[in-house]
Amino acid sequence: MPLDLQRLFNPRSIALIGASTELGTISGQPMNFLVKRGYQGALYPVNPKYTELLGHKCYAAIDEVPEVPDVAIILVNARLAVKMLEACGRKGVPFVIMFSSGFSEIGAEGVTMQNELRAIAQRYGIGFVGPNCQGIIGVPAKAYAGFGSAFIYDYEPGPVSMVSQSGGFGFSVMSLAAMEGGVGFRYVVTTGNEVGISTLDFWRFLVDDPGTQMIASYTEGMKDAWQLREIGEAALDARKPILVWKVGNSEEGRRAVASHTANLSGATALYQAAFRQTGVQQIEDIQDIVDYSAAFQCGKVPRGNRVAIITISGGAGIMMTDEAIARGLAVQPLSPETVEKLRPLVPSFAALGNPIDLTAAIFDDTDLCRKALELIIEDPLVDSVAMANAGLQGEVATKVAREIVNVARRSDKPIMLGWSARREVAGVAYSMLDELKIPHYRSPMRCMRALAALTNHALACGRHEARKREPLLALSSAESKAELAASGTDLAEYQAKRLLARYGIPVTREELATSASEARRIASEIGFPVVLKIQSADVPHKTEAGGVRVGLKSAAEVEAAYEAILVSVRRYKPDAAIDGVLVQEMVQDGVEVILGINNDPLFGPALMFGLGGIFTEVMKDVSLRLAPIHASVAREMIREVKAYPLLTGARGRAPCDEDALVEALCRLSAMAIDLKDHLAELDINPLFVLPAGRGVKAGDALIKPRSR
Amino acid sequence: MPLDLQRLFNPRSIALIGASTELGTISGQPMNFLVKRGYQGALYPVNPKYTELLGHKCYAAIDEVPEVPDVAIILVNARLAVKMLEACGRKGVPFVIMFSSGFSEIGAEGVTMQNELRAIAQRYGIGFVGPNCQGIIGVPAKAYAGFGSAFIYDYEPGPVSMVSQSGGFGFSVMSLAAMEGGVGFRYVVTTGNEVGISTLDFWRFLVDDPGTQMIASYTEGMKDAWQLREIGEAALDARKPILVWKVGNSEEGRRAVASHTANLSGATALYQAAFRQTGVQQIEDIQDIVDYSAAFQCGKVPRGNRVAIITISGGAGIMMTDEAIARGLAVQPLSPETVEKLRPLVPSFAALGNPIDLTAAIFDDTDLCRKALELIIEDPLVDSVAMANAGLQGEVATKVAREIVNVARRSDKPIMLGWSARREVAGVAYSMLDELKIPHYRSPMRCMRALAALTNHALACGRHEARKREPLLALSSAESKAELAASGTDLAEYQAKRLLARYGIPVTREELATSASEARRIASEIGFPVVLKIQSADVPHKTEAGGVRVGLKSAAEVEAAYEAILVSVRRYKPDAAIDGVLVQEMVQDGVEVILGINNDPLFGPALMFGLGGIFTEVMKDVSLRLAPIHASVAREMIREVKAYPLLTGARGRAPCDEDALVEALCRLSAMAIDLKDHLAELDINPLFVLPAGRGVKAGDALIKPRSR
Repeated sequence: MPLDLQRLFNPRSIALIGASTELGTISGQPMNFLVKRGYQGALYPVNPKYTELLGHKCYAAIDEVPEVPDVAIILVNARLAVKMLEACGRKGVPFVIMFSSGFSEIGAEGVTMQNELRAIAQRYGIGFVGPNCQGIIGVPAKAYAGFGSAFIYDYEPGPVSMVSQSGGFGFSVMSLAAMEGGVGFRYVVTTGNEVGISTLDFWRFLVDDPGTQMIASYTEGMKDAWQLREIGEAALDARKPILVWKVGNSEEGRRAVASHTANLSGATALYQAAFRQTGVQQIEDIQDIVDYSAAFQCGKVPRGNRVAIITISGGAGIMMTDEAIARGLAVQPLSPETVEKLRPLVPSFAALGNPIDLTAAIFDDTDLCRKALELIIEDPLVDSVAMANAGLQGEVATKVAREIVNVARRSDKPIMLGWSARREVAGVAYSMLDELKIPHYRSPMRCMRALAALTNHALACGRHEARKREPLLALSSAESKAELAASGTDLAEYQAKRLLARYGIPVTREELATSASEARRIASEIGFPVVLKIQSADVPHKTEAGGVRVGLKSAAEVEAAYEAILVSVRRYKPDAAIDGVLVQEMVQDGVEVILGINNDPLFGPALMFGLGGIFTEVMKDVSLRLAPIHASVAREMIREVKAYPLLTGARGRAPCDEDALVEALCRLSAMAIDLKDHLAELDINPLFVLPAGRGVKAGDALIKPRSR
Repeated sequence: MPLDLQRLFNPRSIALIGASTELGTISGQPMNFLVKRGYQGALYPVNPKYTELLGHKCYAAIDEVPEVPDVAIILVNARLAVKMLEACGRKGVPFVIMFSSGFSEIGAEGVTMQNELRAIAQRYGIGFVGPNCQGIIGVPAKAYAGFGSAFIYDYEPGPVSMVSQSGGFGFSVMSLAAMEGGVGFRYVVTTGNEVGISTLDFWRFLVDDPGTQMIASYTEGMKDAWQLREIGEAALDARKPILVWKVGNSEEGRRAVASHTANLSGATALYQAAFRQTGVQQIEDIQDIVDYSAAFQCGKVPRGNRVAIITISGGAGIMMTDEAIARGLAVQPLSPETVEKLRPLVPSFAALGNPIDLTAAIFDDTDLCRKALELIIEDPLVDSVAMANAGLQGEVATKVAREIVNVARRSDKPIMLGWSARREVAGVAYSMLDELKIPHYRSPMRCMRALAALTNHALACGRHEARKREPLLALSSAESKAELAASGTDLAEYQAKRLLARYGIPVTREELATSASEARRIASEIGFPVVLKIQSADVPHKTEAGGVRVGLKSAAEVEAAYEAILVSVRRYKPDAAIDGVLVQEMVQDGVEVILGINNDPLFGPALMFGLGGIFTEVMKDVSLRLAPIHASVAREMIREVKAYPLLTGARGRAPCDEDALVEALCRLSAMAIDLKDHLAELDINPLFVLPAGRGVKAGDALIKPRSR
């Protein structure tokens, strides 16, 4: 696949295989739109039925086209499309866009044909878009190479590029955002079944594309999700926001994805974790693209999350405060100095906390607006300003806008407005704001959401910078890899814990006994009380098999328990291959947590953290991250579960050793990376977190090697 | 207060006290707007400075006005406003609207003046709106009695009425919804500090107002929240949807409310519970008012929650499916019969699950659209249809709209559209839909949200009807009321449980012992093991005081424990008045849950349910309802907590006696109502829920009487 996709969006020539004279149909539209929208490159319709199409010579076959076109669009039915792709390959066409449907989305037969497409594209190194897509628009080159109602408009070029898996929906979003929301687009591509170039391939290209300042994306699932982390971080380095609209999050939605673009959708929770980890902003509706793109184009970046909310009617302020808090911003009081200076400027009934209600008095004195705004924006406790002007219109609106522009011009802090007046009655005001790229929104809620997106992206960039200065633990154990590679079955507890120990994760003191007397000796060495547990790959549910005895306080109890366990297990599963009985120290004053690795087929190794038992299994109160993680991220994981207070001393317990838990998560992360080719799943359940200063200890563990 | 507010919104005459010739100011605007918008009643400006205003005779004082006006608007400053209200009272004015700010929202001095307002309004029986509001609009009577930018427009009357605590924000929402969203308003009122007529008073009136079909409301808090349940149910009876935009939900937001309209905002969780219980639909932005009002005016009511989602491009379908599921709708497969009939109509790559992707083939054959739509809407497994038409425009759009109208005309199931084409290119299609009141939205997401609101309201009406046929338990215990009335302190466990027992809530077998030998005798009667607990109003934290011993297996252990408890407690609190030691059966195989009554100052008695200990205290995993509740609601409460699986046999336990738990909650509800004048708080912690068929038992309880 050609790495540089510039040629795809700015082709010097396009062949249209299967172009039709019926200009309203899917196969007739692309040629028609390319001509109508003023595409300046060469056009080569290919169809044996015609000799000429819209004034262009029509060729019977692609190999008759007099040059190698930069892009070929294949418009024929699925079966024929396979042959045409092969022909494009032979011709040496670098990029092919295939609209044809009827591949993996229709089931087995389609899958076979789709595999043929993949093989052909790979064989010839074709940069392949589709099938089952609706084409691309390269706005600067007027490359309107697609079909649908979005193509009836000429778009103004701008800094937003968009990647949409869905064709119809993607282009309708683009069209609405451009025509009604004034968003300027650069490159837009619909990717369909993504046999060749994937959504993430396009992201990677757009992160590097100097003309793209913001990326919006609609996705149903990413077959190559393991790339997400790296591309997301590259985007943070470039400070380019990626807005993603991820659908297929419900069970029913996932079913629908399978029959649409046939993408593996993967676990919703892993997407959420990955987006969060890489500062990808999730959006929920078309309006968000419009609103956020205005925010990201304002040219200012908040240094922190403290927003000052200014209103002329308190209602909007309260609502914006709720929304700010819900989205992670801080709404703190202004500094006392600022309040003192504001007091004489405003009516006695104005509220000078935060939100700051300047009241309707602003109608009578717009000067007040500037002075107050100046004081507020200069407050060192303020990182950004959100102002709600209700329906302010006419002359007053113009005066207020002028003052806002004056203040904004002299500050590097973002200021955004909620302003519900219609353009007809506040046009002058709005134009003044537009000129200085001061974002304004019809609803104060939308204003706050956009400011939150801008702020959260800035914070994500900051965290990413900080993480780059943080050491990242890497560990390697050739012995462990070999052991997993050799193992045909799940590792029993004592084996799994030996692996953990190699990566520096503390485990309980323990030793495998193969006789009652040996068990007695080990117990005496460890010290009482002890726990005895059967060790057998054939007995994964040890307790159920009667294979566990806890709280054994003497040598005699240990010997008796040893024999009892063997009797129980032999009754439970007569043919079980028994490795022995593990004699283990009994940990009594730890909080039980669960750590896990899930080596996801799409995302690669993901780490899980939760409190023990019910919290994870019933309450689903867990945090997830893609490995590897820095210590700061491990701490985030620990603190974001709802049950976190149980680790800090809730209900009269001693606070736990959180630092040791952070360390254990980092070691687990390093282990996940080191073993990613050999490990399917790892669970430490429980890990005992002891009181502060006393560390952690893995109480039990299970490892499933990756099957090959 | 006059009960019938029709006269307020349709006044025959209005006096404007403090009206000004400066028409742009707050005191100048109302007179100006009333004249400009064509109000037909008599206008009486009152201001000693003028003899005439905008062609109307101006009076020096209200008592000089030649008749008693239906409404007086007070436009003067706070201090003078108090006197003017008194003057209105003397004149006998039935309704007064006060714009003046500077009352309770500014602190102590303002509170005093506001109390004066209240007293005057009550003394004269004035229907009082405000202070600190922006007036009202009665659209049919052209009573534009307020100020702000919303008043520059003439509105078309319609069936939506709105109550907003915030003036500026409320009117800007109204104006935007009317002018850009086409919402037809009837009565709009801003209520400010609500000294007289409250938001809920207006709701009550509007529920009965024949001209109002939908109520929208912006609220920061309700001082009379105890009315919410009754009014909400009256609205369900009338099948009138109430949309509420509740703000002040974050801690910071609540602080802001205090300085805005100075409303007690109350606990967010209780509002959520009350809205949920009464089918009040919560909204989150201006767009929701526009979108939902179109849905509620479609004239059709879904019979259930099963939606068929139809698209011409799969992407929208997946997103709508996610949104439908998130909002409680069901997206189930069509019946096999329907699928069989659809199959020959559509391309082989169309998806006929649900969402149903008819694919872009619809471009070429609009007839297909009608046939498919007919089959789908007639499917008995479908209650409503949501269809996404992407950006379909021009001729095709018109043809598709015609077919939709044809199908919709013959069905009583709602059909709604997501259709993103601009009106310029789909105007004919949109007009055809508008004529039949078929709602259509620019984004499929908004379409699905609106359909969910319509569906959830219909379901709430249905549940309400069903509940009316369900018996509601009522219990009464004069003895308990007397006991609480007489009690000066919290009730100790044994006293609290005696109360529970009177209301039929099972408690542990137990008896109070005042000597070791008595404890021994009681224990023998109950049977071992037993628990001993100190009983003293001075020792609320029994365990901390060393006042609890569990698992006592013999008479000797009981005697020893009795003495040990007394020693510990005397050391812990030497002057504690000790009632004795409670000897109690030890319950061993129950799941611990917590039931509670919180007699909220705003809402009245609310019921709480959660799993024991950590689940309630750390995880906040609780459900709330206002008392009284029916058994079906008790079951909802139990099933909506996340930890519910612990009651049904998670992790290998026996399923619990859910029916007995439902019964206990109903009895608690009856108790809450019976004792509502005497009880501040009641906690049963724990209530043991025994295995199915074996009932529940209160293990411990605390009752705080209401202080007087």
